[in-house]
Amino acid sequence: MNGAVNFKKCGSLLVTGASRGLGLQMVASLAGGAFSPGKIIATTRNPANAQKLQELAAKHPNIHILPLDVLSQESIEKCAEDVGRLVQDQGLNCLINNAGINVLADFNTVTVEKMMENFHTNAVAPLMITKAFLPLLKKAASTGGAGGSRSMSIQRAAVINMSSQLGSVELNWGEEAKAMSWYPYRTSKCALNMVSRCLALDLEPAGILCMAIHPGWVATDMGGPQAPLSPEESVSAMLSVIGGLTAKDHGSFLGMTGEVLPW
Amino acid sequence: MNGAVNFKKCGSLLVTGASRGLGLQMVASLAGGAFSPGKIIATTRNPANAQKLQELAAKHPNIHILPLDVLSQESIEKCAEDVGRLVQDQGLNCLINNAGINVLADFNTVTVEKMMENFHTNAVAPLMITKAFLPLLKKAASTGGAGGSRSMSIQRAAVINMSSQLGSVELNWGEEAKAMSWYPYRTSKCALNMVSRCLALDLEPAGILCMAIHPGWVATDMGGPQAPLSPEESVSAMLSVIGGLTAKDHGSFLGMTGEVLPW
Repeated sequence: MNGAVNFKKCGSLLVTGASRGLGLQMVASLAGGAFSPGKIIATTRNPANAQKLQELAAKHPNIHILPLDVLSQESIEKCAEDVGRLVQDQGLNCLINNAGINVLADFNTVTVEKMMENFHTNAVAPLMITKAFLPLLKKAASTGGAGGSRSMSIQRAAVINMSSQLGSVELNWGEEAKAMSWYPYRTSKCALNMVSRCLALDLEPAGILCMAIHPGWVATDMGGPQAPLSPEESVSAMLSVIGGLTAKDHGSFLGMTGEVLPW
Repeated sequence: MNGAVNFKKCGSLLVTGASRGLGLQMVASLAGGAFSPGKIIATTRNPANAQKLQELAAKHPNIHILPLDVLSQESIEKCAEDVGRLVQDQGLNCLINNAGINVLADFNTVTVEKMMENFHTNAVAPLMITKAFLPLLKKAASTGGAGGSRSMSIQRAAVINMSSQLGSVELNWGEEAKAMSWYPYRTSKCALNMVSRCLALDLEPAGILCMAIHPGWVATDMGGPQAPLSPEESVSAMLSVIGGLTAKDHGSFLGMTGEVLPW
């Protein structure tokens, strides 16, 4: 299935952390594709500083930039109001919790503060954002997806959490893992997977799909230049997976090409 | 294998959160058994208020009560110094990170503060405590266990993290899980499992065993009166498992009777 085709039938999609890295690429790929969502809502802490995102929006009128500081409850609630005005009765079809940080620390350098900071941004913020946007997601779910479908999909209503294979407890073993013993990042992404799973159970009655995805190791500011994947490659693969999600993927943890990952 | 037998050969063992619940029962069962560790170090935030623990210590001279506030770095470091003086050149053989809380909240009632509080106590504190006690654990590991054994065991050196099946992302599915959609507790225990796994990789070169254990659903203040297991039953089973741990259990997540649990 060609993921891009499905996005045309997606009325509105919101990506957090859209000023750079995977978030920016996601907005670029969605806007530049032949089959773009009705509204692409790109949030970033400080829109005035998001030069590349502003340039994209100038070219594509379906991109709407909104301020969102994921660590501020006030900002989250204000953003949900802004989005509500934008999407009106259609609600929000797809929320992509992409904003994340890697507070680098190993056993020797880890501190309470580093653990708390990474956990707040990567695991707690997506939960609080999902709570704030739930009325808009429910509105979208209740009107049904493309053609009024009652089955789960991002065309109806979905929450996609940008997780990481480094959040898999199972895969955190062996020599390769030992070299990436990043306590704050690993615990935060593992906790995000748990949040995803809890959300999947809680949002299921409303018909809202929820899952976590691993983007691969990507050459962004976070991934570093030695990463094997370009943002374009990762996002193209992920959008194909995300666009084709169905009820069988609800509550799952998938790799960028759709493979099931262990928790 | 009878777990109790092994504890006699365990020179020193420390249990956090020993004033009540599973921690108190662990101290009672270890002290009251025919085969008690050389030194049972029982920590609690406020020893003066730990009536039952004081009564136990009055009967068993191998129980040593020390103050430890797991949320205070200063208190953690002070406790490590106290324990250092107590165990001297023998080091600390077994650290049981038992102290934990359940900040009850579901999707509707969860807040940033509740998530952070539970994460700090249940996942970050065990990490910071393990860091502070590492020199003492290394000392024990380098002298070897019973008979100078170089294989991994709690008789040599080990970190045991009191986790929970509720921290399993895999098992968080289905109707039963839906009724226990406790975001702060589940994410904190899931994060503790990740911490355990990271620690297992980092402490392996020093010969220190590390694993996570699930106590079952126990009728403590936390578990509530409707729980099917008594603290005695749970602790008896767990001590049998803990006492018999070997290198094959390094990095594992086990149930109270030794069964492997999914992450």
